[in-house]
Amino acid sequence: MGFPTQARAVAAALNARLIGDADAGIARAVHPAEAREEGDLAVAVSKDMLRFLPETKAQLVLTMEGTDLDARFRTVILVKSGRSNVADVTQVFRHRPKAAPGIHPSAIVAEDATIGADVSIGPYTIVGAGAAIGARTMILSQATIAEGAAIGEDCLIYPGVRIGWGCRVGDRAIIHSNATLGADGFGFVPTAPGAVETARGSAASPSERPQRNPLQKIHALSIVEIGDDVEIGALTSIDRGTLTPTRVGNGTKIDDLVMIGHNVQIGTDCMLCGQVGLAGSVVVGDGAVLGGRVGVADHLKIGAGAVVGGGSGVGTNIPAGGVYLGSPAVPREEMFENLRLMRRVKRFLEAAKESKPGGAGKAQDRKD
Amino acid sequence: MGFPTQARAVAAALNARLIGDADAGIARAVHPAEAREEGDLAVAVSKDMLRFLPETKAQLVLTMEGTDLDARFRTVILVKSGRSNVADVTQVFRHRPKAAPGIHPSAIVAEDATIGADVSIGPYTIVGAGAAIGARTMILSQATIAEGAAIGEDCLIYPGVRIGWGCRVGDRAIIHSNATLGADGFGFVPTAPGAVETARGSAASPSERPQRNPLQKIHALSIVEIGDDVEIGALTSIDRGTLTPTRVGNGTKIDDLVMIGHNVQIGTDCMLCGQVGLAGSVVVGDGAVLGGRVGVADHLKIGAGAVVGGGSGVGTNIPAGGVYLGSPAVPREEMFENLRLMRRVKRFLEAAKESKPGGAGKAQDRKD
Amino acid sequence: MGFPTQARAVAAALNARLIGDADAGIARAVHPAEAREEGDLAVAVSKDMLRFLPETKAQLVLTMEGTDLDARFRTVILVKSGRSNVADVTQVFRHRPKAAPGIHPSAIVAEDATIGADVSIGPYTIVGAGAAIGARTMILSQATIAEGAAIGEDCLIYPGVRIGWGCRVGDRAIIHSNATLGADGFGFVPTAPGAVETARGSAASPSERPQRNPLQKIHALSIVEIGDDVEIGALTSIDRGTLTPTRVGNGTKIDDLVMIGHNVQIGTDCMLCGQVGLAGSVVVGDGAVLGGRVGVADHLKIGAGAVVGGGSGVGTNIPAGGVYLGSPAVPREEMFENLRLMRRVKRFLEAAKESKPGGAGKAQDRKD
Repeated sequence: MGFPTQARAVAAALNARLIGDADAGIARAVHPAEAREEGDLAVAVSKDMLRFLPETKAQLVLTMEGTDLDARFRTVILVKSGRSNVADVTQVFRHRPKAAPGIHPSAIVAEDATIGADVSIGPYTIVGAGAAIGARTMILSQATIAEGAAIGEDCLIYPGVRIGWGCRVGDRAIIHSNATLGADGFGFVPTAPGAVETARGSAASPSERPQRNPLQKIHALSIVEIGDDVEIGALTSIDRGTLTPTRVGNGTKIDDLVMIGHNVQIGTDCMLCGQVGLAGSVVVGDGAVLGGRVGVADHLKIGAGAVVGGGSGVGTNIPAGGVYLGSPAVPREEMFENLRLMRRVKRFLEAAKESKPGGAGKAQDRKD
Repeated sequence: MGFPTQARAVAAALNARLIGDADAGIARAVHPAEAREEGDLAVAVSKDMLRFLPETKAQLVLTMEGTDLDARFRTVILVKSGRSNVADVTQVFRHRPKAAPGIHPSAIVAEDATIGADVSIGPYTIVGAGAAIGARTMILSQATIAEGAAIGEDCLIYPGVRIGWGCRVGDRAIIHSNATLGADGFGFVPTAPGAVETARGSAASPSERPQRNPLQKIHALSIVEIGDDVEIGALTSIDRGTLTPTRVGNGTKIDDLVMIGHNVQIGTDCMLCGQVGLAGSVVVGDGAVLGGRVGVADHLKIGAGAVVGGGSGVGTNIPAGGVYLGSPAVPREEMFENLRLMRRVKRFLEAAKESKPGGAGKAQDRKD
Repeated sequence: MGFPTQARAVAAALNARLIGDADAGIARAVHPAEAREEGDLAVAVSKDMLRFLPETKAQLVLTMEGTDLDARFRTVILVKSGRSNVADVTQVFRHRPKAAPGIHPSAIVAEDATIGADVSIGPYTIVGAGAAIGARTMILSQATIAEGAAIGEDCLIYPGVRIGWGCRVGDRAIIHSNATLGADGFGFVPTAPGAVETARGSAASPSERPQRNPLQKIHALSIVEIGDDVEIGALTSIDRGTLTPTRVGNGTKIDDLVMIGHNVQIGTDCMLCGQVGLAGSVVVGDGAVLGGRVGVADHLKIGAGAVVGGGSGVGTNIPAGGVYLGSPAVPREEMFENLRLMRRVKRFLEAAKESKPGGAGKAQDRKD
């Protein structure tokens, strides 16, 4: 009755067993605690979600084979337990943007741009001279594809995305709102030796510096190259390289508000979580995972399959498969060792206090 | 004389006492050090500002009752000292955006969108199918309200804001430029166990990993729900939930460049300062305050009324009313205790050095 | 042959010596490892790049006088070694945006806006009432210059930039995509004493707080003032001041995703790297350099010529010429001293363990 799909179809799509009413209409898939209305299908495919199943208001449930359920549900869909359960279920219910096919009359597309078949270019979008948009790619609205830029096939570009001149994006990319690719890398040379050189001892002391010391721009001549199957989060910035393209490999996923500096080279199937920052010329190997807010200093190398814990500040190269934590980031074992050390120091000082009345510890505490 | 208001009116609006010329025209309210022109009203309602009053070039002054003033001012407005003095004064002088009423001819508003009374929708804005805009809300320009999204009454939406499909914003919200609501949450499952699982010891070692290990997307099916009286800063991103809406409670204020992950639940009257990052499924209780750059790891709970100091990295739950600092964040007292401990260690080693010539300290330092 | 320039012209522009074919066409300047095609000029003006020269596929090379080269290159351009070599070379090859002169018919420019000579205002840009755009400034597209804002001469404004009402930008500024100037500063007063005041011990305990504690807005009445020759990165936010303009001095360069709070005062020729965050009312002296991800707490002062290492969290004032590192940031020497201290502690505990069997160290380790 106006529901977008039926329990039967969902079960079929997931190759799942269905118990109860196969005709039940499904409006949306929700967490068990969020079910409110008739068409709500409560999804409980992890331990965390299962805890909420007894209290759910849903009449329709999707869960794993072997789950102990009471008899009150109208429809139960049972999937085999597997690592991709959540991904599979959400795939069935995923949102498809409603973009009109073709080029919206308000889009400004250069005459010499190459536009693939079945492309959708939304309103107030600009496609510059010599740019190329691959088949079936959807650019939702108000985006900018600058001159000479190339987007692959089957991409989804959200509103406000800015792709700079000459940048290249592979197939099946998803780029979220207001992300920017191809801003100039941040490189400047002080006319005279500046504060950094002074700090390194390679220049005269600050008092001898001239009144003004203009910073000369190192222009970014190269581009950004994004592979296939890459996802880029909202408000993420990927700067163009100086003489080498800034590269993101196939299958790599980048979260929101991430900063990727000029000349950075990222491998395949990496994950860069929210607010990660990679300074210029960083290299990230295949399959590496950088937790939220990880920062990496310029020119460092993160090995393939390495994992860097959230919030870490990386100041050294990380070997392949390394698991690093902290600021400065150290191997996990070393971090734990350091924590143990601190606890031992505490106990040592406690003991020293007790055994030597008037000793170093106690006496000096009064001065704190 | 072309001044937007008079001293008399300002005094009346603030229920303040006026001494001197009540007809003086006021062009703008400024810090005492910034007064330059005839219509400048120097505002000095805090100790910090009062220090600059003796040197101000202003002829017009607004300050607190009891302030010792010289006689040179043309007009003095005296408010009673109170916690909201600055807020009250700025309220009188606040900027009101000059947005034309109605729908600008260049705005593209879906036929079935619901548009309230006295709405202003600025140029090059897009309002999608089934979207709703509440009465008196102003959308300045070039914004995107995607299909099915709903904005409440009396909101102010700045240029370049992107509200994703289905997202909901309450009444009296202010959303600053280029903020995005409703980008997909960042969730992926490696096809085979990936680097994180290897790091946890729950998978084979890196060398056994296949060449490629594609990340399967967990689609974000849910929305973002913003309460009433919420303010969201420029370039802030709030991701949509997977099966649960990402929620921001009534009265909560969020600064610029903040990242709020999928499924996050934020209470009422919270403050999230600039560059805060909340990973997926974090819960923040009512009235909590997160200082600038605070990061919180996924699934953690920040209790009501908790305060987390700027720059902290939160790796544990924080109880209601807790005051936490550092990375990893610990209770304030523990942080101070740790600092005391370090100072004590320093002194202990100094003492050890002096009492035992050739002892551990000195001898080994040569190796450094 | 369709190449944009010839070796002869490049050598002349750089005042460089040319060996070999002066007529060789040059398509682009690239890193030696990136040369692929006939017109590629391999640039090797640093040690790092020189390492790649023996393997380059380029036929055309630009390097420093005195470099040992084999005879296989068709053309060699030799510059004198100097600190600005990279900058000089990139200057010759820099990209010039292809913006049509004049005001694009789709741009909405207020009748009373002041538009200088030879300005380019791109499509879907909005210029508000009373705004001013200086001569030869290029606004690429889809940007917003709000009412009363003023942009100087010879500026380059990328797509999606938002300049708020009344804000002022000097000459020769470059502002990258989706940056925002002039969002409201983040200032609120809780109606009753809130969590922060409770934490400071200046208010009742949390349990006595009322159910709701609305935050009253301190409106930002002032503007953002940007000097001449300033560059602002993509997705950077500079908030407007309360009663004082937020100011960025001449020649200062700001990277992407930087957050500059209200009332901040930044001097001339500073460098603020990616993701830096300055809380409200911070003062940064001339020529200071803040590494990537540096955070500075509100009201602090960074002295002229100071250098703050990447990732540092600044919690105290920093003197002129100071070199600070860490969180909380301390002088470089102190940081190294602390690291030495920790190493000494480790050794001391090791020694204690060995000399006293069953002592503090060993015995208690079993409890860990």
